[in-house]
Amino acid sequence: MKVQVPTKTLGTTLAHLERIIPARSSNPGLSSLLFRITGEQVILSGTNLEIDLEAYLTADAVGEGSWAVPAQVFGQVVRSLPADMVELSFEDREVHIVSGTFNTKLQLTDASQTPELSFPAEFPAELPAEALARQLSNVRYAAAVNDYQAVFRGIRLELHENHTRAVASDGFRLAWSHSEENSGLDADVILPARAVEEMTRLLDGASTVQLALSDSQLSLATPHYRLNVKLMEGTFPDYQRIIPHSMALQVTVAASELQEAVSRVAVLADPGSNNRIDIFLDGDQATITSEGAYGGAREVVGVREVTDGEQLALSFNARYLLEAIKPLSGDVSLAFSGVTTPTIVKGIADPGYLAMLVPLKTVVD
Amino acid sequence: MKVQVPTKTLGTTLAHLERIIPARSSNPGLSSLLFRITGEQVILSGTNLEIDLEAYLTADAVGEGSWAVPAQVFGQVVRSLPADMVELSFEDREVHIVSGTFNTKLQLTDASQTPELSFPAEFPAELPAEALARQLSNVRYAAAVNDYQAVFRGIRLELHENHTRAVASDGFRLAWSHSEENSGLDADVILPARAVEEMTRLLDGASTVQLALSDSQLSLATPHYRLNVKLMEGTFPDYQRIIPHSMALQVTVAASELQEAVSRVAVLADPGSNNRIDIFLDGDQATITSEGAYGGAREVVGVREVTDGEQLALSFNARYLLEAIKPLSGDVSLAFSGVTTPTIVKGIADPGYLAMLVPLKTVVD
Repeated sequence: MKVQVPTKTLGTTLAHLERIIPARSSNPGLSSLLFRITGEQVILSGTNLEIDLEAYLTADAVGEGSWAVPAQVFGQVVRSLPADMVELSFEDREVHIVSGTFNTKLQLTDASQTPELSFPAEFPAELPAEALARQLSNVRYAAAVNDYQAVFRGIRLELHENHTRAVASDGFRLAWSHSEENSGLDADVILPARAVEEMTRLLDGASTVQLALSDSQLSLATPHYRLNVKLMEGTFPDYQRIIPHSMALQVTVAASELQEAVSRVAVLADPGSNNRIDIFLDGDQATITSEGAYGGAREVVGVREVTDGEQLALSFNARYLLEAIKPLSGDVSLAFSGVTTPTIVKGIADPGYLAMLVPLKTVVD
Repeated sequence: MKVQVPTKTLGTTLAHLERIIPARSSNPGLSSLLFRITGEQVILSGTNLEIDLEAYLTADAVGEGSWAVPAQVFGQVVRSLPADMVELSFEDREVHIVSGTFNTKLQLTDASQTPELSFPAEFPAELPAEALARQLSNVRYAAAVNDYQAVFRGIRLELHENHTRAVASDGFRLAWSHSEENSGLDADVILPARAVEEMTRLLDGASTVQLALSDSQLSLATPHYRLNVKLMEGTFPDYQRIIPHSMALQVTVAASELQEAVSRVAVLADPGSNNRIDIFLDGDQATITSEGAYGGAREVVGVREVTDGEQLALSFNARYLLEAIKPLSGDVSLAFSGVTTPTIVKGIADPGYLAMLVPLKTVVD
């Protein structure tokens, strides 16, 4: 059983699989990469039980069968190959890897021990791949990292008629990215945030992605990949209810100016007090200050437009404010509902994106 | 007391000082950066007690005095400054840092608690800066990292008439880099390997470096920096005695071909057996193989010239062999004295460099 394939093509495909397949596992089948050859089609697959991935390789193949190799070692070998082409010859217990003057034999693992992956027969729905990837990655930062309620470690994906929305929240802040794309599905699902990261990488380069939904997983298909992402259980909070509608002050500033000023002032902020920075809004000026153990910093950012209100002083976790602005360019609108109630960040050029963060409570001296 | 200086100039100088000055220390004076202003000269200094560094800044300065700032925080602030120029105004207890619209005040630390640095009044000797830096960095890899006898963590620098040589060894391998430069000094010293790394960075860009030697330190001066490197005590082994002179086999190969082949074959080598690779030399071929837990690899490298001997089979730690070749380009000469006695690596184009490594003992099946 022989496969000839360009080294670079194999390497690119493996990089995705290696990020998913665990390097070590008490179940050796789980850390294996499965090769399936049928006629001229070569299929590589692997899973971490949260995300299943199957990749289609354009290769010159002879024979039929399934073989498993230790994924990480195989990846290391392929990355080091000297020639443009590589030939893989699968035998009973080992695979010979030949590229130029280099020749390796790698012991096979037991293919029957690799988890069986089940992809849907049909993908009835469809979305533009790049737009979906951007929506998901724009809100990724707002999901909780760990130690929080499970649903906060997920990203909610709403798929309805003319409504595709990604939402993430860690309970202290929220981000959504909305589009009027119509996938053909009608459901709200919660996907594990880490699986979503890999999913957005796999959408890169594809024009459309096909979708299929079951009770337990969302499946995606592009010309080169098929993947299943396990759905998370639980109820995502009713985030619409907590978005304020009455605003005390609303201003427009340049995203890059605000981002840079907050980054600089934050250097002197106190990490022990949530990297607190203070913002004083007064007419056409926003004065950003910090006070920490080593001293303090101050910078003034010009305000382009004041829509409502006059003066306001409030405090933020600098990192939260920076992450909320990061997906935006051009001008951003900041709408402050009050000094202890949520602030809304929106992009003028990207009305589909919305971030909400709660100001820090300030102690009156 | 005011200083005006280009932000970039200050940042470059600080980067060197920040690598030396400890981020945290039980002695707060040790983690401080000292500013001294006399007339139009601004001097920045710091130490980690193994290496003292003084940097001269071309700046627009008014006033006289000494002030200390926490080095790491000051560095972070400077790296974030928005404008091309920065103005530092030193007051009794704080320094105001103004750059564009950004304004920071940083609390000063106690300048009287910073260690007093003593640089020699005269630097009687001199060497080409770039050549010295290359000699030192070419042998750095062969010094021991830790857990070894102190002198093995140092680099021996031999300074004699028409003889400048850097030597490092960890007891299992040795590297030297020799030149016929005449510094004007006549001494053998041992410098801490980590201090040597910083020293070579500071030589970058200078054409010559001036030298002065005392009982306890080697001092160096370039147009922008002065530094003292503490000498290590102890006796460096008599390395000349262990270099073999009778060779069983001597071959010439292309450095890049050997390097790449060894890297690839080493992927399958067993980390538990010192990353062992086997080399079989036979006429105009060197066959490199490995056997590890996952399988094995094999690659053949062409031999350009065989000077002595015919066949030889021996084993190496792949990493040691790769590090020995790394400073070389073009053709390299490998001289094998035997299967358990040292192998000598030399560059055809760089006769001043020599590496010695001991083959691994192989177990006969």
